[in-house]
Amino acid sequence: MEKTAITPTRGQNYPEWYQQIIVAADLAENSAVRGCMVIKPWGYAIWELMQQDLDKRFKKTGHVNAYFPLLIPLSYLEKEAEHVDGFAKECAVVTHHRLVPDEVNVGLKPDGELDEPFVIRPTSETIIGESFSKWVKSYRDLPLLINQWANVMRWEMRTRLFLRTSEFLWQEGHTAHATKEEAVAETEQMLKVYAAFAEDVLAMPVIQGEKPCFERFPGAVNTYCIEAMMQDCKALQAGTSHFLGQNFAKASGIQYQNKNGELETAWTTSWGVSTRMIGGLIMTHSDDNGLVLPPRIAPQQFVIQPIYRNDEQRAQVLAYCQQLKQDLEAQVFAGNEIRVHIDDRDIQGGAKSWEWIKKGVPVRIEVGMRDIEKDAVMVARRDAVGSKQSTPRAELLTSAIALLTEIQDGLFSKALEFRNSKMREINSLVEFNEFFAGENNIDSGFAIAYAVDETGIEEFIKPLKVTARCMPLDNNDVAGVCIFTGKLASKKMVFAKAY
Amino acid sequence: MEKTAITPTRGQNYPEWYQQIIVAADLAENSAVRGCMVIKPWGYAIWELMQQDLDKRFKKTGHVNAYFPLLIPLSYLEKEAEHVDGFAKECAVVTHHRLVPDEVNVGLKPDGELDEPFVIRPTSETIIGESFSKWVKSYRDLPLLINQWANVMRWEMRTRLFLRTSEFLWQEGHTAHATKEEAVAETEQMLKVYAAFAEDVLAMPVIQGEKPCFERFPGAVNTYCIEAMMQDCKALQAGTSHFLGQNFAKASGIQYQNKNGELETAWTTSWGVSTRMIGGLIMTHSDDNGLVLPPRIAPQQFVIQPIYRNDEQRAQVLAYCQQLKQDLEAQVFAGNEIRVHIDDRDIQGGAKSWEWIKKGVPVRIEVGMRDIEKDAVMVARRDAVGSKQSTPRAELLTSAIALLTEIQDGLFSKALEFRNSKMREINSLVEFNEFFAGENNIDSGFAIAYAVDETGIEEFIKPLKVTARCMPLDNNDVAGVCIFTGKLASKKMVFAKAY
Repeated sequence: MEKTAITPTRGQNYPEWYQQIIVAADLAENSAVRGCMVIKPWGYAIWELMQQDLDKRFKKTGHVNAYFPLLIPLSYLEKEAEHVDGFAKECAVVTHHRLVPDEVNVGLKPDGELDEPFVIRPTSETIIGESFSKWVKSYRDLPLLINQWANVMRWEMRTRLFLRTSEFLWQEGHTAHATKEEAVAETEQMLKVYAAFAEDVLAMPVIQGEKPCFERFPGAVNTYCIEAMMQDCKALQAGTSHFLGQNFAKASGIQYQNKNGELETAWTTSWGVSTRMIGGLIMTHSDDNGLVLPPRIAPQQFVIQPIYRNDEQRAQVLAYCQQLKQDLEAQVFAGNEIRVHIDDRDIQGGAKSWEWIKKGVPVRIEVGMRDIEKDAVMVARRDAVGSKQSTPRAELLTSAIALLTEIQDGLFSKALEFRNSKMREINSLVEFNEFFAGENNIDSGFAIAYAVDETGIEEFIKPLKVTARCMPLDNNDVAGVCIFTGKLASKKMVFAKAY
Repeated sequence: MEKTAITPTRGQNYPEWYQQIIVAADLAENSAVRGCMVIKPWGYAIWELMQQDLDKRFKKTGHVNAYFPLLIPLSYLEKEAEHVDGFAKECAVVTHHRLVPDEVNVGLKPDGELDEPFVIRPTSETIIGESFSKWVKSYRDLPLLINQWANVMRWEMRTRLFLRTSEFLWQEGHTAHATKEEAVAETEQMLKVYAAFAEDVLAMPVIQGEKPCFERFPGAVNTYCIEAMMQDCKALQAGTSHFLGQNFAKASGIQYQNKNGELETAWTTSWGVSTRMIGGLIMTHSDDNGLVLPPRIAPQQFVIQPIYRNDEQRAQVLAYCQQLKQDLEAQVFAGNEIRVHIDDRDIQGGAKSWEWIKKGVPVRIEVGMRDIEKDAVMVARRDAVGSKQSTPRAELLTSAIALLTEIQDGLFSKALEFRNSKMREINSLVEFNEFFAGENNIDSGFAIAYAVDETGIEEFIKPLKVTARCMPLDNNDVAGVCIFTGKLASKKMVFAKAY
């Protein structure tokens, strides 16, 4: 059997493989704080690239950033009944505002009890709604298009790095509109922004769809989502966009005077993606040798490893590498300067190579004296571990962008092919039960079946540990018979085991 | 008397003027959450520019970003005795992790009491130290150069937007080094990075200095700071850089094996600037007509106001404006594309102009049909309200960068002259008491006097509501007689009333 850098392999133990990828690529670690993670520099650099790219897309669609308080008064949260029900069980609650010496135990204890407790924001609809109610007065103030980059907290009992943590980083868009149509259009637009980002930058194919009623965001009228398939065939919700109707606008009193001077209630939306996407990125592309990063989201796209035996050689090789770095950085890939790092640390070459392989860097380049003599370099692609090829320097430079593009597109195609091969149309409950019979999802995948958008159908799928992911937006216009109820269902639904 | 856009003026009521500037420029507002502010889009855009510029400087000096938990276990905070004393009185404490229906009062109450309470980070030395103790094993792992962009919380009783809020945004650098010398060099380097940023980007002159012992960060060996003078002659600490010695490294167990295989304790530093700097920016440059922004920190450097009477004119004027915008944006000022906004909102022209004046935009441009006929535009500079000048379009384009540079430099020179005019060498306690006799600082300023760096001298200055700001690093090598104790003091110290 071939030796792999990651133990166990995906096939041996997928959940453990996932944890080991994170360790091997040095992305994050658990902290002593229940369910909160430390995002390490390589993991955070990926998040920064996600932020930069998304932020541009948000601004291009007319949104501006702002910042709202971390703490939410209990009374705000209570304003929207479904909303508070949805989050009450997982709220970190601040009850005191100082510490005093504890006479009984050595140490400190909370003091200064607050009249009204605060919760650490699990999401900010209610606190942002409070501001919006002051900011919106006339139809001229609409649409109000705001985004916030922030940390949020949902007290989780079972946590997994990136996928489910008590604290996570995210962006939350919050918008207010004069009409229902505009708010729905905004909700759909942002879903498309997320889908384009996921596919074009993360090379992660997604299904755009609408959540069934029992999977909606607490307080929303409609929830749209993008769903990706991981390599264990489970679904990962990678982003959501909510049409909130007038529910939150009524709860917070977001009203405006229309052109005729009449008072109307606004329509609002919210939408978010989080550090969870890093989990999705990992599980879409990585292999048994470590993380695999699509070039557009790789903190370094090329890592150059100089090889030399003495100081004299070192000077010559490093000068060559620096020129190469400079020539690569002068080129623009997908709107940004190519990112190049020279790794001149004094560690053994093999260990060094494997470190960058495990970190998922798209292209490694080795430069030694013999290469320089030929004015060539050794090029190794992460998407084909083991293949290392001598390439004339000039050729590398002229083909660098094509190379990154090829890797980026290749990863997307591979992920798309995999997903499509694991999607099946299901026409009966018997077939459905068979499809999801195994303990793991790995032999099943996404089931596509007609199902009514009604509470009650969860009862058929819960025993199988399956969830209804969404009703796809594309190619889903023909009605059919619901496999659970026998009623006429207007849409097909995607079902899967999920993160 | 000349009518001003801001009431009251600086002379009439400086603290209230400050609040009104923030309202007029739409920068931020108080929230219903005690002491927490909402940073509105224009204020947040300034913060984003600060972040981008500082982040580049941090990365250029070898630092990488990471992210650590929001919550700190009480036991961590307790590890460093001075540190916990310094922050215990202002900590938001999380004691519960869910909400349940309150049978007595309608609503919810905290439930799920935690075994150990958490505090919301007031600063992250202790939680980051915990990670560092795991990350650092050998001298090869050093220096460890980390920065975090985050929100922090210090429960403040008296708050003022940007200057003192319970929650604020900041960056906190945390580094670990093998030797004391390297750690001290890092502390000094980051102080210089802050000073360069403050002066070059914010056009805010600062004094670099060392805090006297009684003003140090809790747990630090040395605290360095940059101190700026506001227009009411009060001091504002705009950034700090701490040499932490081995205090936190010992408390957290950050140890490494040196080249000889012996275990040694690391030396650490921390350094930070926050949204407080926006307060400093406001009070350095703004006037009685609103905010004044140095071009390098202005979210928009040019705002173009099209003027027309009908749809036909509108098409022509807008096309002209768009071309102008494009031509300006093609130019690079201080490393970034020039930022230009066309304001085509359907509101009255005078109101529109005043809005941008109050928001501090460096240059406003008006374009009407008569201007287009001459291929000229009306140019109005924020640093000279009232002066509006017809300028040939071609001339504006060739001089745009020079114009922004001139405004940037002019604001710095003006602020520097003001500060220097308000600094006085003080040679006796009598003179010192006289200097600070008034209720306001406005007739005094910064006093520079010999003083020993010893606890006890605060007692002389407290009754005057004066604080010791720092011992300047520059031109401060000659000893003299302490005006408080008569002892020989090795350094001069700056004293001022302060924010």
